[in-house]
Amino acid sequence: MEKLGKLYEGKAKKLYATNDPDVLWVEYMNQATAGNGAKKAQIQGKGELNNRITTLIFKLLDKRGIPSHFIKQISDNEQLVRKMTMFPLEIIMRNVAAGSFSKRYGVAEGSELKQPILEFCYKSDELGDPFVNDDDILALGLATREQLELISAKTREINLALIDIFKAIGVHLIDFKIEMGTTSDGTILLADEITPDTCRLWNANADGSIEHLDKDLFRRDLGNIIPAYEDICGRLEDLAKSKGID
Amino acid sequence: MEKLGKLYEGKAKKLYATNDPDVLWVEYMNQATAGNGAKKAQIQGKGELNNRITTLIFKLLDKRGIPSHFIKQISDNEQLVRKMTMFPLEIIMRNVAAGSFSKRYGVAEGSELKQPILEFCYKSDELGDPFVNDDDILALGLATREQLELISAKTREINLALIDIFKAIGVHLIDFKIEMGTTSDGTILLADEITPDTCRLWNANADGSIEHLDKDLFRRDLGNIIPAYEDICGRLEDLAKSKGID
Ligand SMILES: Nc1ncnc2c1ncn2[C@@H]1O[C@H](COP(=O)(O)OP(=O)(O)OP(=O)(O)O)[C@@H](O)[C@H]1O
Ligand SMILES: Nc1ncnc2c1ncn2[C@@H]1O[C@H](COP(=O)(O)OP(=O)(O)OP(=O)(O)O)[C@@H](O)[C@H]1O
Ligand SMILES: [Mg+2]
Ligand SMILES: [Mg+2]
Repeated sequence: MEKLGKLYEGKAKKLYATNDPDVLWVEYMNQATAGNGAKKAQIQGKGELNNRITTLIFKLLDKRGIPSHFIKQISDNEQLVRKMTMFPLEIIMRNVAAGSFSKRYGVAEGSELKQPILEFCYKSDELGDPFVNDDDILALGLATREQLELISAKTREINLALIDIFKAIGVHLIDFKIEMGTTSDGTILLADEITPDTCRLWNANADGSIEHLDKDLFRRDLGNIIPAYEDICGRLEDLAKSKGID
Repeated sequence: MEKLGKLYEGKAKKLYATNDPDVLWVEYMNQATAGNGAKKAQIQGKGELNNRITTLIFKLLDKRGIPSHFIKQISDNEQLVRKMTMFPLEIIMRNVAAGSFSKRYGVAEGSELKQPILEFCYKSDELGDPFVNDDDILALGLATREQLELISAKTREINLALIDIFKAIGVHLIDFKIEMGTTSDGTILLADEITPDTCRLWNANADGSIEHLDKDLFRRDLGNIIPAYEDICGRLEDLAKSKGID
């Protein structure tokens, strides 16, 4: 596989074309951002950790029958993925109140929700990624009704699988953001990344205290993210090994 | 029917108890507000016009098989309604892009939508009436799944009826906000008001220019609302008369 020209440089990853039109070369960067880029830092080791964590999670999901764009990890901070046409949607799933949900609705962080909540934001830097409901998505043409139903069903399924995976490593999955796209034949697949940058992960402390093992450490200046990301990565390595994944 | 103590004074109406525990006495005020009360004025004649307009619309809807809380107009600015337990929801239906939708999603006012859009806001002055989706409503316990399905279906039906009613008087229904509640036996009914305060109504001008016949005249300092509200009221009187409603 040959690495060709850069297609896109985001806040966390660079995407390159390859000699296969259906394959992208992804480079995970050390950059951390919060507040739509308002806060920014270079954090040594972050790119490698996220590349490894998302690799392990995509492999664990695949083993459970949930496919993704992931093809292969090719270096410490690089992987190959299937090239997708992305939906301009942030797909957010919440199991426990936290973050913008808590703020928006005045619900204390850590409150159990009566049921998991699926939310969508329209990915648009100019508009500030506004919240959209299903009708908005259809009327704005961001997905068809059939696609939206599949995206929703798949996301609820991914939530159950991720809750289970994180539970197996002693971590409580509070919420997460994923992205999906379609392959050239129209198949909808999980894409982008699943890392502590895109999930809220709380250590399951016996005394009920909250220990953040995710990007809130950076967003809220609570401490260095690297030991937390290393902790998550190490536990996922052990879990994967126990399931015969390497 | 006896008017008893005042139960609530909102921005547009006062609610009084009556000697019948299932009946409320509503007084329409002359007050106009915008921006959650940030802009405020007393406009002579507004209370009477809105009391009359909402009376005519509730009667026209009832004739089409859509019931509401409305019982009887009892004076120029007063009516009796069924007392409801209100859902803390603003139920918004959009046929054409305008207002907060246009701003939020960067869609020009007046753009046709691919389909009507149903949106909900959680009525909470402290939180600023935040947008909620269906999952948020269920998780926050603002309605049950069964209630939400009924509310949604009824609102889409009301939209079709209102489009028709306004079309019959040469007016284009851009969007509107309604509220619903449950009667003591659990029946879900349309409540509150349907007036140019709660609808965007554009005159169907032959040359395609926009002529606002609603509260945007006040919100945006485009002119006096009274002639516009009188115009809507007069056309509705004629329509009602033609259908044998008085
Ligand atoms: N398989 C894929 N095919 C094509 N694009 C992808 C794929 N997976 C992820 N992407 C896109 O690649 C970009 C990832 O880069 P990064 O995460 O750094 O972006 P970002 O800074 O989050 O910015 P944004 O997501 O707003 O574009 C995202 O735009 C994402 O939608
Ligand atoms: N049939 C009904 N039974 C009980 N309450 C009702 C009924 N119809 C409307 N209401 C409530 O009466 C109030 C109407 O007053 P008004 O429209 O002035 O309120 P407002 O200023 O819009 O404030 P808010 O709607 O935020 O309370 C609303 O709170 C509405 O929910
Ligand atoms: Mg990203
Ligand atoms: Mg009101």
